[in-house]
Amino acid sequence: MDPDRDKPYELYYWPEIQGRGEFIRLALEEAGVPYVDVARLPESEGGGSKAIVRLLRGEGGQSPLFFAPPILRAGKMWIAQTSLILEVIAPGLGLAPQEEASRVLCQQVQLTIADFVAEVHDAHHPIASSLYYEDQKDEARRRTATFLNERLPKFLRHFDGVLGDKEWMVGSALSYADLSMFQVLAGLAYAFPHAPRPTPRLLSLGERVAKRPNIAAYLDSKRRIPFNTKGIFRRYPELDLAQRS
Amino acid sequence: MDPDRDKPYELYYWPEIQGRGEFIRLALEEAGVPYVDVARLPESEGGGSKAIVRLLRGEGGQSPLFFAPPILRAGKMWIAQTSLILEVIAPGLGLAPQEEASRVLCQQVQLTIADFVAEVHDAHHPIASSLYYEDQKDEARRRTATFLNERLPKFLRHFDGVLGDKEWMVGSALSYADLSMFQVLAGLAYAFPHAPRPTPRLLSLGERVAKRPNIAAYLDSKRRIPFNTKGIFRRYPELDLAQRS
Repeated sequence: MDPDRDKPYELYYWPEIQGRGEFIRLALEEAGVPYVDVARLPESEGGGSKAIVRLLRGEGGQSPLFFAPPILRAGKMWIAQTSLILEVIAPGLGLAPQEEASRVLCQQVQLTIADFVAEVHDAHHPIASSLYYEDQKDEARRRTATFLNERLPKFLRHFDGVLGDKEWMVGSALSYADLSMFQVLAGLAYAFPHAPRPTPRLLSLGERVAKRPNIAAYLDSKRRIPFNTKGIFRRYPELDLAQRS
Repeated sequence: MDPDRDKPYELYYWPEIQGRGEFIRLALEEAGVPYVDVARLPESEGGGSKAIVRLLRGEGGQSPLFFAPPILRAGKMWIAQTSLILEVIAPGLGLAPQEEASRVLCQQVQLTIADFVAEVHDAHHPIASSLYYEDQKDEARRRTATFLNERLPKFLRHFDGVLGDKEWMVGSALSYADLSMFQVLAGLAYAFPHAPRPTPRLLSLGERVAKRPNIAAYLDSKRRIPFNTKGIFRRYPELDLAQRS
């Protein structure tokens, strides 16, 4: 018997950005399960970024298994790596396909989304995540140009091909891959309003997800942190396509 | 009944580099199972890079589910994404921990290795993988400096902490995470002989893996493609630390 089994999920992620934590938040919100977004609690209640730093340092006995957030506590289990967290919790949330080949494909799509998200980040931080954007602005202009002209269209073509004419990315029901695809589309619309547009099929998938009652309520709530220029998707007009000389 | 079940695994990966495909090759070699390294067959037998391009284009009915190799055919199943391939095949190869929490941790370590490998690649290609190294050499010098001084030590500290004083990375037996860790250590020794060294614990893990009979035989065979400056780990002396002004 696991006495922690019925405790709500605890998510550890930077409190001021959507970032990679948002893929986890969207799954928990769609499923309507209770969770604690630990670092968004006041420091007096054990929250703040300090809660994450404590975990990364291995204080409290989890040492030293985590390289970076998001980290999720699910009962007795502690899990890091966004895609893996989703893979582990999605079946219990009703957000994973039942059949094995589809479940594997769903995770494959999620991992490709993770690769894409890493490239989105590196477009504005091509030299080092430890340096300010302002200290790598020239390189960011160069990298973002090839990102928007080559990589973005290639990834979008791939995701569009996986979706095809189906209602959802994998199988016949909504899965975490759809929620993550929505997040990518929302991020692109914010960061690169002048970049090549996703296909109509992808855009309408995004709309279908946004209209799910639990997702709509979440997006309308204060729990949804607005996009900003601290996160992965950043709106720097000088990097977007139409603003270039 | 799956009539393809007993067919050997088919690996699709670029034939001239170790790259991400090497993590799969090491697992198959350690397990001693038969596999076909399809793109290394002659073109007259359906091999060559063309075999991969056909898959990526979706010719042959698998369309369009793959963004990039490695891609593995395992019976009826087709899987892309290095970490996922390992997660799916490792239990059958005897290379995954039995207990659920350890199995999840094993995949978490593999995903962190994948993140590290992506950073190794981007150190020499910080602007675009579609451009030659020579066309992004200045940026590569800048990125590699912060990579070797900040990111590499941080990742190595993490991996050392996961290993601790145990014999293997996760649990009490060899798993695919150990094989992958070996590959990372081998790649670092080739590409950055003057960079901060891995800890003695990690180095001796690498030696333990290299001495496994099947791995030793593989490393000694022509099946092991030598490291070169087309792969992920590249030896460019001007990027390594001791060569810098």
